[in-house]
Amino acid sequence: MRVAIKEDILKEEDRVGAENRRVFRQHGVAVFNLIGSPGSGKTSLIEAAHRELAGDLAIGVIEGDLASDKDTVRLRGLGLSALQINTGRGCHLSPLMIKEALTEIKLESLDILIIENVGNLVCPVSFDLGETAKIGLVSVAEGDDKPTKYPLLFREAEVVILNKIDLVPHSDFSREAFYSGLRAINPAIGVIEVSCRTGEGIGEWGAWLRERVSSPAGR
Amino acid sequence: MRVAIKEDILKEEDRVGAENRRVFRQHGVAVFNLIGSPGSGKTSLIEAAHRELAGDLAIGVIEGDLASDKDTVRLRGLGLSALQINTGRGCHLSPLMIKEALTEIKLESLDILIIENVGNLVCPVSFDLGETAKIGLVSVAEGDDKPTKYPLLFREAEVVILNKIDLVPHSDFSREAFYSGLRAINPAIGVIEVSCRTGEGIGEWGAWLRERVSSPAGR
Repeated sequence: MRVAIKEDILKEEDRVGAENRRVFRQHGVAVFNLIGSPGSGKTSLIEAAHRELAGDLAIGVIEGDLASDKDTVRLRGLGLSALQINTGRGCHLSPLMIKEALTEIKLESLDILIIENVGNLVCPVSFDLGETAKIGLVSVAEGDDKPTKYPLLFREAEVVILNKIDLVPHSDFSREAFYSGLRAINPAIGVIEVSCRTGEGIGEWGAWLRERVSSPAGR
Repeated sequence: MRVAIKEDILKEEDRVGAENRRVFRQHGVAVFNLIGSPGSGKTSLIEAAHRELAGDLAIGVIEGDLASDKDTVRLRGLGLSALQINTGRGCHLSPLMIKEALTEIKLESLDILIIENVGNLVCPVSFDLGETAKIGLVSVAEGDDKPTKYPLLFREAEVVILNKIDLVPHSDFSREAFYSGLRAINPAIGVIEVSCRTGEGIGEWGAWLRERVSSPAGR
């Protein structure tokens, strides 16, 4: 019985996710579900996207955090339209949370909506929020073995952003080990190396977003 | 009904956690539930403890990972007694997983059992595995705002290990911001700053473990 009820809940979540996707498509908004560990640089990556695309493509943000509105305040300070969801003890954003948030977001004024999920490399992967694509974010400081140890995200993401590459000389991170682990999980996945701190690779990140917005595949 | 069933499951988990605690006490083993993000350095911190205490106190390890036995192989290579639990899609270790693992662990030969939880700053906090204390691990690379944004762990842990302090000069990490955020959540919590890479602070980490093993409080 427990299992049946769990399945019911998941089915309902999937239904709401599909409904969100229809709404996003109707408004022609590309939606990215950004998933990474605490401190991998999710908010910094969104800030960098805003700087790259500002005046050209309008980005909105939904911020998922257990507590605090620090990131939302930070993003609004840059002129971004951002909405905070606090999950309390919740380890992921759910399709229903997104559906409710959409009542407060003017989708018609956006080209891109980035959903910054709760910092967690595991649970958020299991929920379809209705996004165009999942983006996996991992930082050099987390070590080169993350794809092998947390394969779920790396199987489902369309692209992986490897952040904090400025730390490579100050760590034991091996690009060879990282790429070989990642390719074993998902041979086709794209990777963009960036440092949100130095700006390296951010042009490529912006170009990926532009390309993804103009390409209808998967929308 | 959904809520009632969820509560039943949690009650059952708590019962098993309490049972585990009785078993640990019977054997006089101090058990530490090590919780931190992916890549915060959980396995490295255990390796460091082993180097500090080897020949003096016997440490056993339960390794929780979604997939792979990389960490267990790594620890066994150092002569540590380590047991792997793979959780698949599971975002935390449960009291029942620990109970089952105990059938394969010789508690009578151990002074300390370190349970390396799945890399996750959220879900593992909600489960009492029967441990003597929760240890919160966070790395400088994750940023100085983690206590504010993920308060659950920092409320429940007995001590926080701040790892990768060798990266402070290469990052925007502010000790002042970190400590003020942490103290706002938990004024009394102890903090040990370490770098598993350079060895800085590891003596203090070893001393904390020794002290905690000899002190019966909370056991």
